[in-house]
Amino acid sequence: MLHQEKANQAAALLDEVGLDCWLSFGRETGIHPDPGVELVVGADVTWLSAFLFKRGGLRIAIVGRYDVPTIRRSGVFQEVIGYDEGVRQPLLDVLRRLDPQQIGLNFSPDDPTADGLTHGMWLQLHELVRDTPFFSRFTSAAPLLSRLRARKSPTEIERIRAAIRTTEAVVELLGKQIRPGVSEVQLADFVHEQFRARGVPSAWEWDSCPIVNSGPNSEAGHTRPQANIHVEPGHLVHVDLGVKHESYCSDLQPMWYIRKPVEKAPPEGVRRGFATVIRAIEAGAAALRPGVRGYEVDAAARRVIVEAGYEEFKHALGHSVGRAVHDGGTLLGPRWEKYGKTPEGIVEAGNVFTLELGVATEAGLIGIEEDVLVTEKGCEFLSSFQRELMLI
Amino acid sequence: MLHQEKANQAAALLDEVGLDCWLSFGRETGIHPDPGVELVVGADVTWLSAFLFKRGGLRIAIVGRYDVPTIRRSGVFQEVIGYDEGVRQPLLDVLRRLDPQQIGLNFSPDDPTADGLTHGMWLQLHELVRDTPFFSRFTSAAPLLSRLRARKSPTEIERIRAAIRTTEAVVELLGKQIRPGVSEVQLADFVHEQFRARGVPSAWEWDSCPIVNSGPNSEAGHTRPQANIHVEPGHLVHVDLGVKHESYCSDLQPMWYIRKPVEKAPPEGVRRGFATVIRAIEAGAAALRPGVRGYEVDAAARRVIVEAGYEEFKHALGHSVGRAVHDGGTLLGPRWEKYGKTPEGIVEAGNVFTLELGVATEAGLIGIEEDVLVTEKGCEFLSSFQRELMLI
Repeated sequence: MLHQEKANQAAALLDEVGLDCWLSFGRETGIHPDPGVELVVGADVTWLSAFLFKRGGLRIAIVGRYDVPTIRRSGVFQEVIGYDEGVRQPLLDVLRRLDPQQIGLNFSPDDPTADGLTHGMWLQLHELVRDTPFFSRFTSAAPLLSRLRARKSPTEIERIRAAIRTTEAVVELLGKQIRPGVSEVQLADFVHEQFRARGVPSAWEWDSCPIVNSGPNSEAGHTRPQANIHVEPGHLVHVDLGVKHESYCSDLQPMWYIRKPVEKAPPEGVRRGFATVIRAIEAGAAALRPGVRGYEVDAAARRVIVEAGYEEFKHALGHSVGRAVHDGGTLLGPRWEKYGKTPEGIVEAGNVFTLELGVATEAGLIGIEEDVLVTEKGCEFLSSFQRELMLI
Repeated sequence: MLHQEKANQAAALLDEVGLDCWLSFGRETGIHPDPGVELVVGADVTWLSAFLFKRGGLRIAIVGRYDVPTIRRSGVFQEVIGYDEGVRQPLLDVLRRLDPQQIGLNFSPDDPTADGLTHGMWLQLHELVRDTPFFSRFTSAAPLLSRLRARKSPTEIERIRAAIRTTEAVVELLGKQIRPGVSEVQLADFVHEQFRARGVPSAWEWDSCPIVNSGPNSEAGHTRPQANIHVEPGHLVHVDLGVKHESYCSDLQPMWYIRKPVEKAPPEGVRRGFATVIRAIEAGAAALRPGVRGYEVDAAARRVIVEAGYEEFKHALGHSVGRAVHDGGTLLGPRWEKYGKTPEGIVEAGNVFTLELGVATEAGLIGIEEDVLVTEKGCEFLSSFQRELMLI
């Protein structure tokens, strides 16, 4: 169902991006899961395999004999051709029959989700078609792949919503565990128990999902919770977590403040920092709509932080969320070298992004992350936007 | 501990294969898990990252700022350099300092486990070093990577043994579930329950691990169990399954025969087929020792099948088992196009292979698969070699 939805989207995209044929070429997808293949095939393959989408609607799979049954059963391809000894002959036969003028392959220097073809496979494919006209017809399928991945189908959006609901239920229970003396590792263990009980995988690497930061001595970043850092009065507690629901991710950062015995409210620095972060996310959300470029949205939020006198965050305001927690395509980020061309990308309706940023305070990191869906006119928060610091 | 073991192996391999520097270059390893990086790094990275192993022992990691803490904590690298905007400058600084004469990258047309570099990353890396002497010093690190992966360390062998023990415990319980009327899906569900109860992931794609085949109408290959195929008297029941124990796999195929009410033993065709399969596996095991080439071992087993008058199996006799269930490197397989150069590889002590093959009979598929460790003089069965058909 989902694979059919995406396969139909791919067929329409061939027209839109003016590509004659999309060819995914792979093997051992259990070792190298090609993000493009995952979207439309729905089963692993072992041997050299070719998945062709031709403009006009024809879809052909060429796979090793023992991979035929599952690929046939997926129902995506009108023809599933099996082979025993080598893919070369059936592949050349199909290419001669279809005679595609350009053949888009899954590579991209910029977008990791459009870059499933390994360099060894690229060499091998060129070797297979050497001395044929097809050798010079290869190009990048990235324009198709980035759109295919970023324009979420109704099923994909529903799964992301479900992942967010599960995550928010865990966050609510987690809040009751946060008290002075509890260590970062204990809070992370509690989250893991909840994931296990609900039968959901973490949205990223298990050992660093959740990230837990309590107080000013906890290191920010993709780090692991520490057993020797304990929640103390006067700490900010910051958690970054997500789950996968039927292969689709959530990615959220909730925040708490632990009051000291005499405090009714957090100190001024924390309140001001939190308010600034919220205003910056609101500014990003206000700028997010179809047609803008990624870096423009980032700039709207970044400006609020810088103008308030804080050091600017060293990452992008937002990334796509989908099958991967960093789901490729357009980045809501600054035009820094490490981001390549992704901040130049154009926002489209149906995209799902995070909006996330933080500032450092004397009580620890303030970081908020929400997930939003781009609509025809602007954006809709998929998560329950945390506008108030939760107090313990 | 494991990553240190493998990192030390890698350092020694640079000398052995005559490579000056091994450079893994990657990003978003959650989307593209580079099999070479997995062995020696032990944590995912988000942004463009470079992991350099220089001949002589120096190891340097260059990663995005927020990835620094986990990479530093892995303890594998003497230097961990963080960056904010781009990897280019710190990478060029390190290359100028080390001045490696050849730089091995993770690509291979033949070995999927030595082929972690995507084509987009390959392009990007060449762009980063354009107009420097390093542009022309790139080569394939496959000779190092294939050996690094295939020569299992003591920790790796212990984990594979543990995966096999768990699998055999599940097989024993599964045997008690096999009776006329049970469907393939019910047997697969039982195996999944056992995996869940033991907290172990399946060794490959969950939906097709286990593969369950009951009787002659069940399709062989990487297929999924069917709800409308039920165990019947006179059926062979064939299961292909494996688990991961701390990231390391098992891969086994046990067999049962369901007697008809009047039968004491399986029919002649089944007995003869089973005995032939066992003899072929024994012939493969007898040929398996350090120094032989993969295709020679395959040929020893294949000959037994062909000489007994059966159709030869359309796959390799054996593949490596390790972090991946198909763990790359030398293949114990025929020199067919789809296998590239992998059957030419040389068997080494410390390699772990499957020995697996089957023949078709009127009662269904006979297929047996065992896991073996290559020793200094020959091989040792890690699994309990099933020399007798189990009767129900």
